[in-house]
Amino acid sequence: MSATLAELALRFGCELRGDPELRVDRVAPLGNAGPGSISFLSNRVYRRCLASTAAAAVILGPEDAADAPVAVLVCEQPYAVYARIAALLHPEPAVPPGIHPTAVIDPQACLEEGVSVGAKAVVGAGVRLAERASIGPGSVLEDGVTVGADSRLLANVTLCAGVTLGSRCLIHPGAVIGARGFGIAWDHDRWVKVPQLGTVRIGDDVEVGANTAIDRGAIEDTVIGDDVHLDNLIQIGHNVRIGAHTAIAAGTAVAGSVTIGAHCLIAGHVGLVGHIEVCDGAVIQAKALVTRSIREPGEYGGCLPAEPAARWRRNAARFRRLHHLERELRKGRAGGGPEE
Amino acid sequence: MSATLAELALRFGCELRGDPELRVDRVAPLGNAGPGSISFLSNRVYRRCLASTAAAAVILGPEDAADAPVAVLVCEQPYAVYARIAALLHPEPAVPPGIHPTAVIDPQACLEEGVSVGAKAVVGAGVRLAERASIGPGSVLEDGVTVGADSRLLANVTLCAGVTLGSRCLIHPGAVIGARGFGIAWDHDRWVKVPQLGTVRIGDDVEVGANTAIDRGAIEDTVIGDDVHLDNLIQIGHNVRIGAHTAIAAGTAVAGSVTIGAHCLIAGHVGLVGHIEVCDGAVIQAKALVTRSIREPGEYGGCLPAEPAARWRRNAARFRRLHHLERELRKGRAGGGPEE
Amino acid sequence: MSATLAELALRFGCELRGDPELRVDRVAPLGNAGPGSISFLSNRVYRRCLASTAAAAVILGPEDAADAPVAVLVCEQPYAVYARIAALLHPEPAVPPGIHPTAVIDPQACLEEGVSVGAKAVVGAGVRLAERASIGPGSVLEDGVTVGADSRLLANVTLCAGVTLGSRCLIHPGAVIGARGFGIAWDHDRWVKVPQLGTVRIGDDVEVGANTAIDRGAIEDTVIGDDVHLDNLIQIGHNVRIGAHTAIAAGTAVAGSVTIGAHCLIAGHVGLVGHIEVCDGAVIQAKALVTRSIREPGEYGGCLPAEPAARWRRNAARFRRLHHLERELRKGRAGGGPEE
Repeated sequence: MSATLAELALRFGCELRGDPELRVDRVAPLGNAGPGSISFLSNRVYRRCLASTAAAAVILGPEDAADAPVAVLVCEQPYAVYARIAALLHPEPAVPPGIHPTAVIDPQACLEEGVSVGAKAVVGAGVRLAERASIGPGSVLEDGVTVGADSRLLANVTLCAGVTLGSRCLIHPGAVIGARGFGIAWDHDRWVKVPQLGTVRIGDDVEVGANTAIDRGAIEDTVIGDDVHLDNLIQIGHNVRIGAHTAIAAGTAVAGSVTIGAHCLIAGHVGLVGHIEVCDGAVIQAKALVTRSIREPGEYGGCLPAEPAARWRRNAARFRRLHHLERELRKGRAGGGPEE
Repeated sequence: MSATLAELALRFGCELRGDPELRVDRVAPLGNAGPGSISFLSNRVYRRCLASTAAAAVILGPEDAADAPVAVLVCEQPYAVYARIAALLHPEPAVPPGIHPTAVIDPQACLEEGVSVGAKAVVGAGVRLAERASIGPGSVLEDGVTVGADSRLLANVTLCAGVTLGSRCLIHPGAVIGARGFGIAWDHDRWVKVPQLGTVRIGDDVEVGANTAIDRGAIEDTVIGDDVHLDNLIQIGHNVRIGAHTAIAAGTAVAGSVTIGAHCLIAGHVGLVGHIEVCDGAVIQAKALVTRSIREPGEYGGCLPAEPAARWRRNAARFRRLHHLERELRKGRAGGGPEE
Repeated sequence: MSATLAELALRFGCELRGDPELRVDRVAPLGNAGPGSISFLSNRVYRRCLASTAAAAVILGPEDAADAPVAVLVCEQPYAVYARIAALLHPEPAVPPGIHPTAVIDPQACLEEGVSVGAKAVVGAGVRLAERASIGPGSVLEDGVTVGADSRLLANVTLCAGVTLGSRCLIHPGAVIGARGFGIAWDHDRWVKVPQLGTVRIGDDVEVGANTAIDRGAIEDTVIGDDVHLDNLIQIGHNVRIGAHTAIAAGTAVAGSVTIGAHCLIAGHVGLVGHIEVCDGAVIQAKALVTRSIREPGEYGGCLPAEPAARWRRNAARFRRLHHLERELRKGRAGGGPEE
């Protein structure tokens, strides 16, 4: 697939500065592009690569347009425009419809038109696969699962009983949706399991990363809103609710009964303790531990950055006697504090 | 399934205050309950929902009984009693015994009565499945695995060679038990793999969460005690030993050769470095990094809570020069410290 | 398999102190060894077990040789020598070649001699399995995957389209290599997916742990160098490059477009934010958050160790007003600082 810069500018609402007839047929990074390729600048880190790029054209914001040595497509959201142009030039091959002969489909499952089920996939009783839903090889859909139209499960995904997925969802390999929540109650001399009676309801256009786990609700359902994007290896506990358009990076764990608003950005390795609320528009930085509800939109942080170990240890040692240090200094003494 | 409050009080040893003939047929959360449902109060966070609940009855502790607007079942462990009542009212459907025709069972496997093996499951040579053990679709049991009576593996579980599971275990989708431990030794100019000769022995009533990994031992076995509960996405390194009744929340990583006692509670995202011991009854808070053995029961913490980013940065910057700050203040100088 | 101490000393270049004719047939830990077994001492933690060991012989460094009550094999790298002796005494059973009748092999796949494909494995079009490659039961190889000679995939592994693996790699159960990277761009009122056009290229002798996820590149490939060892539950983002001989422990997350050098050691639960570089020879301690490029080899740390909760809270509270404390003390006031 190829297009002229004029076609791209028109289709994606950019201002073109350069030859409208120039034709591109692929995307490439600024620092490793050649003739026929189109690149983009959105992260400041890569600004240094702009002046020497060999791309045919660059998608960028107005503030950078003057510095490009080649044709430019100027727009307000260069990364989004890049995404759309990349999808145009490199269209993803469609999954051909059809049921692989080794798939196991329960006779009580309902498959709409255009559905694809891969080799060794297992589809339980009462499952409903809407139009053009695609189930990857080795995936298991327990009884009563619903998958919306144009949703795509890759290989080895597990959807437990009763889970519902909206339309156009993308579920990556190894994801587990609807496993029993971690509900246990201490009973005299042993744990007793708390029945997990809810399920998981997932909206439209949701992405769930590889090996991410979303637990079913204890009484009510776990609910993931429309256009939520979850990266790999994330834990979503029982009864969690996540609002529309929220994105969460890899390795984050959300404990049970947390409510996260819409339009939140949560970085990697973040932890949220149970039973708290995060309002719409919160931005949480990497590795922060959120221990209380967040009621104001804005940015939240909570992890000290790594340093050379010797320097780190020096400060960490002081942290361990901060209490004593303060007391001592308030008293005006200057002797050495206890190390404990 | 339904029951009268009198029946429930009698069966679960509660004091009933209210109409003994009132009948309930389901559980519901305090804030979203209706006639015919029974709810519970155990987490203080939800106390505010008690006064306005529309549940037919509430299970709670003596301290809250007077404040309920409806019938109550009073007991010392309301969460555990709730768990038992929920299991009574919402019995889990039994897995029907039988071997799915697409399962692959090695002729040298031994299957006791009442066993269930799901579609596409693979059961290796020398595997023993005790009475009523249930293997989910797509699960793989390598050679020599033993699964105890009434244990249940959900979909896409992997048990590596020689792993043994006790009775009544519950293993969630994607869990991997018995993979090679992370044993490598530097040998002049490259890593050499250290053979992992042990296996994993798991006791009775153990729960292993979705996508959790438990590595096999290097020389001796990795050992998980009875009634241990592991949440999702947990890493258990080689040679780890975990005592009975310990519970660990999602995302925690236990490095190799750690010994954890009985009755410990370990929160999410905790890290334990290798070769240390944690005594019985330790409680470790979220995201703590345990770097030394814990020899006294009690609570341990080690993660600063998230704050609004501006405030966080202000304090974090001081942390980075804590060493200089202390030195300077001890000297009585008041000039600005180096930022480095 | 058994060997005399003389044979072992000769073969592995050790100095033998003790009876050369003594024969050993298994390895055992220092504290739990018996006649006929050989043990090793490499971690200082276990030095206390040396004096009372009942092993027939111990592999150790020159500094410990005088303290052993039994025969010793003295060498500079006792852990590596132990690994080689253990592999000699306990040879791993070879995977017998052959295609299980329930495996699904695309007619356009190319399988070299000695290949093994397990039950229920799925091998797509254009896949190439080199000599003696072994694919575990339930594993899925999408179209165009290449697996090098003598590489071994255990059960339920997923390799997405176009991923290439070198020779002698070992991929543990549940690993997902080549899933779509987490590339999304905000476009007015919703997220748009950024096409992930690269793939994953993995070198020779690489180990990938259970349930670890390695994302495919956005434009260029994600690249893992030779002899890299990744533990379980690790996240490797899109476009990451990792140099040869680097080892990473469980639970670590590497964000997109990070470049990690050769010979690095990265502990568990470490986080690296996107678009930074880590030079050759960096050592990063557990749970550190690396927020800037590391340009000097050496050790880096960044996580405060856990303490008894009461003591932890006392210091953590001071941390939260460190800014005020400093200001106040510089002013010479001694009144209580605001708690905020």
